[in-house]
Amino acid sequence: MTDADADALLIAVTAAAIPTLDEEARAAARTRQARLTKPPGALGRLETLSEELAAITGQPRPRLERRAIIVAAGDHGVAARGVSAYPSEVTAQMVANFLSGGAAISVLANAAGARLRIVDAGVRAETPHNPRLVRLRIGAGTADITQQAAMSRTEAARAIAAGIALVREERTAGLDLLGLGEMGIGNSTAAAAIVAAITRQPAASVTGRGTGVDDAHLATKVAAVEMALALHRPDPLDGIGVLASLGGFEIGVLAGAYLEAASLRVPVLVDGLISGAAALIAAAIEPRSADFMLASHLGVEPGHAATLAHLGLRPILDLELRLGEGTGAALAMHVCVAASRLLDEMATFEEAGVSDSDAATAPED
Amino acid sequence: MTDADADALLIAVTAAAIPTLDEEARAAARTRQARLTKPPGALGRLETLSEELAAITGQPRPRLERRAIIVAAGDHGVAARGVSAYPSEVTAQMVANFLSGGAAISVLANAAGARLRIVDAGVRAETPHNPRLVRLRIGAGTADITQQAAMSRTEAARAIAAGIALVREERTAGLDLLGLGEMGIGNSTAAAAIVAAITRQPAASVTGRGTGVDDAHLATKVAAVEMALALHRPDPLDGIGVLASLGGFEIGVLAGAYLEAASLRVPVLVDGLISGAAALIAAAIEPRSADFMLASHLGVEPGHAATLAHLGLRPILDLELRLGEGTGAALAMHVCVAASRLLDEMATFEEAGVSDSDAATAPED
Repeated sequence: MTDADADALLIAVTAAAIPTLDEEARAAARTRQARLTKPPGALGRLETLSEELAAITGQPRPRLERRAIIVAAGDHGVAARGVSAYPSEVTAQMVANFLSGGAAISVLANAAGARLRIVDAGVRAETPHNPRLVRLRIGAGTADITQQAAMSRTEAARAIAAGIALVREERTAGLDLLGLGEMGIGNSTAAAAIVAAITRQPAASVTGRGTGVDDAHLATKVAAVEMALALHRPDPLDGIGVLASLGGFEIGVLAGAYLEAASLRVPVLVDGLISGAAALIAAAIEPRSADFMLASHLGVEPGHAATLAHLGLRPILDLELRLGEGTGAALAMHVCVAASRLLDEMATFEEAGVSDSDAATAPED
Repeated sequence: MTDADADALLIAVTAAAIPTLDEEARAAARTRQARLTKPPGALGRLETLSEELAAITGQPRPRLERRAIIVAAGDHGVAARGVSAYPSEVTAQMVANFLSGGAAISVLANAAGARLRIVDAGVRAETPHNPRLVRLRIGAGTADITQQAAMSRTEAARAIAAGIALVREERTAGLDLLGLGEMGIGNSTAAAAIVAAITRQPAASVTGRGTGVDDAHLATKVAAVEMALALHRPDPLDGIGVLASLGGFEIGVLAGAYLEAASLRVPVLVDGLISGAAALIAAAIEPRSADFMLASHLGVEPGHAATLAHLGLRPILDLELRLGEGTGAALAMHVCVAASRLLDEMATFEEAGVSDSDAATAPED
């Protein structure tokens, strides 16, 4: 078997291994939730979130103690077309910044009590040889998608398979909750193209300013997305094909990470637009993978809402973030942990000797 | 000087001591924010929040390490009119539950790394003699506001003065961030009356289901609020008078806590409807106190949005909470801490050796 065959097989086996949600665990969580010392429903989304976590993990009282955030970095040939306010060398510079603890995600992962795994999925410039950096380097940046495919189909499968292997390793270290972030100059253009291809929305309605380009750059971005879509006409149901056409390497690694998280029943937080585009690729490969995803926040990028709607996800936070890196995922971890701890640690009416209302046994109004 | 005179004097002195926001500290935070390794504005509300925290604390890089949540409990005579789904004895039972760690706020304060201070402001039933319970017991529950004033003006001033003293003590123990919550069967009726009186909205538009009453109870609640307002016709600019007319003791204690937090430059998180009603009383006594408040979340109670609008506050979270107890404040603490840590701990472009965009020096688009 060639490496390419092995990658394709790993993807197929992982996708096939994704279970269904555990409705028994959800029902058990809901039953317990109704007996906790609060009026039914008074904790709003924290209650439904805790029940969702039960269904995902298969545990009636899920514990989310071991948390990790994976940040995959990659460069994009399309950056040469002036779609970003920053030069491509910033990708490698930011990888160094992640490793030295100076980036936003460095601070927020720490605040979330999550270990941070940085991955060079395909950065153009050389990245540090640092034991804390996973150097996959599937390619030295993708090709310009307005001119040719971002990568070969073999490379696309390689990226996804690498993401699967990565989460498998993380699980060995202990993993109850995962967040997936990214970094890559030009990758909001690739992501917008993926979102347009898979959700079948027009390029102009899902392409935004990314990390802050002006009107002229935005017009260039929309044109680049339109050119790429017209050139490749990707099949929205062929996740590997969409990835190969539009890129990038970091998006492929994250798509694989979503698939493996789902197969392991690990709840996985979608971050912003690019993390969401990777989730769309994963869901195109195996729609059940979306059942194991949670939307951490609603970003300001216009394609993000379309992405979450396509995945059937409702954002937990709305803080007008547009950074990526997994920052929204890190922030939402606290809410997920709070929801699971409430379900697990609160006293029931019986335990606390608190009088219940008559209404508590009736259906909620 | 009588005790009543001393209370009135303490309130007046505290209100007069509230400073203005520190615009120099805000500007310094903004300048640093612009040099951190992210595109300008990419952290959305976390950036504006960190700048607000700088203006409140007077520190260009505020640290929010010592956190506390005060939960004040009190009973309400109006509960006898069937405005709640739960009997009055639940207030004392829940105080016991707070102390034994089984309540939602017990779990969430722990998750937020905040110490929890429980206060019996005026619970009807006896509460535990527990060194961790502050037993103020200004009265054994308020009077029925549809028939008479909730409390005397002297008692109202006593409650507010006690709240001031309480935060002064907390400050001695170290206090960088405060959240204010409450518990009291019937207190969403009192709060709705206060919100209607101070924001000048009709009772029906600010009175909600509280912790979950049905349609018949809701109609009873609206009628009770309307009766109380018609009976007392409180002057919306007289905070102590509104409190005396409509109650309750826990709302008065929280109103004093807001005033003292402001005078000490401690950022203070408003929780749900009742915590918000107390904030309205504080702002009626001294409008500058609202500058030191942060809205933790948008609750589902209809009066909450009117309250936050009146105070000029924008909610951080929207999780459909309707529990009170300080649960929303505890959850928002993590976001405040994250915002302040990003400002303090992220590397600048220079420190990290990351190339800045040309756009970063231009005004944000």
